Amino acid sequence: MTVNRRDFVHAAAAGALSLVARPVRRPVQQDPRGSHLRVNGRRVNQHLADLSEFGRTPDGGVNRVAFSDADRTAREFAMDLMREAQLDVHIDPVGNIIGRRGGASHEALPILFGSHIDSVPNGGNYDGDVGSMAAIEVAHTLADAGHRTRRPLEVVIWCDEESGLTGSRGFVGDISQEELAAPTRGGAPLAEQIRRIGGDPDRMAAYRRESGSVGAYVELHVEQGSVLDDEGLDIGVVEGIVGINQYDVTIEGFANHAGTTPMDRRRNAMLTAAGLVLAVDRIVKSLPGRQVGTVGRLLVEPGAPNVVPGRVRLTVELRDLDASTIESLWRSIAKELESLAARYDTPASYHVRHRIEPALCAAEVQAVIAHAATTLGLSAQRMPSGAGHDAQYLARVGPVGMIFVPSVGGISHSPEEYTRPEHVENGANVLLQTVLRLDQM
Amino acid sequence: MTVNRRDFVHAAAAGALSLVARPVRRPVQQDPRGSHLRVNGRRVNQHLADLSEFGRTPDGGVNRVAFSDADRTAREFAMDLMREAQLDVHIDPVGNIIGRRGGASHEALPILFGSHIDSVPNGGNYDGDVGSMAAIEVAHTLADAGHRTRRPLEVVIWCDEESGLTGSRGFVGDISQEELAAPTRGGAPLAEQIRRIGGDPDRMAAYRRESGSVGAYVELHVEQGSVLDDEGLDIGVVEGIVGINQYDVTIEGFANHAGTTPMDRRRNAMLTAAGLVLAVDRIVKSLPGRQVGTVGRLLVEPGAPNVVPGRVRLTVELRDLDASTIESLWRSIAKELESLAARYDTPASYHVRHRIEPALCAAEVQAVIAHAATTLGLSAQRMPSGAGHDAQYLARVGPVGMIFVPSVGGISHSPEEYTRPEHVENGANVLLQTVLRLDQM
Repeated sequence: MTVNRRDFVHAAAAGALSLVARPVRRPVQQDPRGSHLRVNGRRVNQHLADLSEFGRTPDGGVNRVAFSDADRTAREFAMDLMREAQLDVHIDPVGNIIGRRGGASHEALPILFGSHIDSVPNGGNYDGDVGSMAAIEVAHTLADAGHRTRRPLEVVIWCDEESGLTGSRGFVGDISQEELAAPTRGGAPLAEQIRRIGGDPDRMAAYRRESGSVGAYVELHVEQGSVLDDEGLDIGVVEGIVGINQYDVTIEGFANHAGTTPMDRRRNAMLTAAGLVLAVDRIVKSLPGRQVGTVGRLLVEPGAPNVVPGRVRLTVELRDLDASTIESLWRSIAKELESLAARYDTPASYHVRHRIEPALCAAEVQAVIAHAATTLGLSAQRMPSGAGHDAQYLARVGPVGMIFVPSVGGISHSPEEYTRPEHVENGANVLLQTVLRLDQM
Repeated sequence: MTVNRRDFVHAAAAGALSLVARPVRRPVQQDPRGSHLRVNGRRVNQHLADLSEFGRTPDGGVNRVAFSDADRTAREFAMDLMREAQLDVHIDPVGNIIGRRGGASHEALPILFGSHIDSVPNGGNYDGDVGSMAAIEVAHTLADAGHRTRRPLEVVIWCDEESGLTGSRGFVGDISQEELAAPTRGGAPLAEQIRRIGGDPDRMAAYRRESGSVGAYVELHVEQGSVLDDEGLDIGVVEGIVGINQYDVTIEGFANHAGTTPMDRRRNAMLTAAGLVLAVDRIVKSLPGRQVGTVGRLLVEPGAPNVVPGRVRLTVELRDLDASTIESLWRSIAKELESLAARYDTPASYHVRHRIEPALCAAEVQAVIAHAATTLGLSAQRMPSGAGHDAQYLARVGPVGMIFVPSVGGISHSPEEYTRPEHVENGANVLLQTVLRLDQM
């Protein structure tokens, strides 16, 4: 029979008063820097399961859109867990939940780590949740062990990640008064939504964290892609969060009767659109590298089976860690669009709908994560994050790092997204060891 | 100063009691077969303008969807015009308005002519209206002239042409009890809609006209395409109404995060769809002839800029006068679909959504129309009708013919559709002379 950290904490949680009767075959090596510490894998996975009840859908997914009732009650649950982990909890003016654990040094900059617990509509139970529950678990583990860090630690649950990284943007001062006043998807203005969850938008302007005020930010997240799962890897060491350019393209043809308009007299906007869809794929694949390009939205007008398409509106999205690669890809695509528009006599125009600059993870944080994974006996690979994360805004105020764990089948934003319990535990342990090592730096 | 038929009728309509004071330079050649007769162009165009008031939209178009209040009041207006034209008016069980003018022979089969006055939502003032007002004008002209035909004549305003040729289908017994019970776009079951306009669906089954019961059916209609307008021609002699096959295609990819899914791990349904759109165009154009093929409807799921399309549903529509050409085109397209689906790993399936057999116009009716045009000094060209018309169902019960007049710019189903007054008058005169000549045959 063996006793490990996990059994101890579990037994403690179950009210066992003493473990003296249990033989200890492998006594724990005590290290003042905490390298021997491990999270309670069963507990973090249990918390993940408990969290999934808030906004649960019949298919086992979750509807926990930011500011909804499900989101609000889940936030209460998270704050309770934070208090159990002996964190000093408050809600900041933006609506982010911050659980603070004091450090030995009063001058040292804090280490922040966390994620989000809001979901997309009909989402799953791992995106954001894994990183959030693991961050609390790291604090809980430190509290259980009575481990005192040099730096203060702040566990953060960012508010409203899914509809536009609201919490992290507000944290770094990137939300305008106009945005606060504008209605959200839920209808109410953002300021009112933030007030509903305990934030104080009137104090936001004065609140922003300045560049250099954060020692480091580390976020554990599920990959949301299939690279780790396909390759059988445990940990992704994120090199950066890709930049995203979205271009709205409008192609103007002429909507005509599909029966009475001969083929040679048509100005069919759909032909240009189809050519562009294939061109985006071809051009993006023509360069080596991990850039991606997608036409995910395409609307045909009027959209009737018996009418020649008069207008197509579509969005081209390009992502890469290098903004100049994105720009270069778009130049090739725009040239192809021009040529297709001329060929089919369908004038086309475009504008930038959305542009997010790439955010690179700090080299030293990447190195610490990679080292932590290796020390824990886990396989790891460097990779970009193709999805946006709060970390990209935190990069404005300090060095950031991200830890990925595998998403089975790469499924994301779906009730079917899944990350195995052992991968959740692995990720939490890498996060713990990363925080402890950063604390020494 | 000259006096012609038009001035006479206009003066008579204005209440002038006598024309004896006017010098007549070109006395009208009286022909017992009526070859000298001409419609009152001013009157038919005025009726067209009057009709446009029913369901008029702010942009000068018309919203006169079948069974709507606008449709019902317009039908009252049309019945008044028919009575002025000395027609004996009734509504048949299907809801068609029939205005009858007796013939000299009791055994002769009737000649039917007419069109429809319902519109598509936000349609224009020429589609259906031109043929309807011209048909009444032909009867009015015969009444004015006291011209008695050998055969009975029936002016018909078909009900609900636009949403599925309801009137003509019911007329030939092609509406099932299931269809009568099913809800229409307006919500109410078709039977109830038909009752609202004075039809009697309970009598429909017993009512149907049998094959061989109609001497001929002739319909004047705007072309709804730009061939006549582009070529500067007056009259189209319709060879037949094309068959239409519509295929619903579903392409199954996998909806994945557009940021986290590398290009080489995608199953992007949109790529297959784009390839198919271009293949339809290429394959349809690869044969000589006037066949057309269109992808007018294409829906991307989930349709977000940042999600790889997981499913695309689209409709391929093929039209030609020859059903075997349509089938052969589809075989080539389906083969291409299979190859694209394999290339992009996106299984595809299809089913026939809709199939309408081509309906050929009778050679002898085409000849009569062509002769009438020539006699009237009008330029004419044979052509298919790419659009569906009530005539295609009438072809089941007797020989049919169709007369096209130019649509400016080929615009159709739009507030901007337009046919010049002189072309309306030309079409009505060709219809008049066609009816008179068919009456002799």
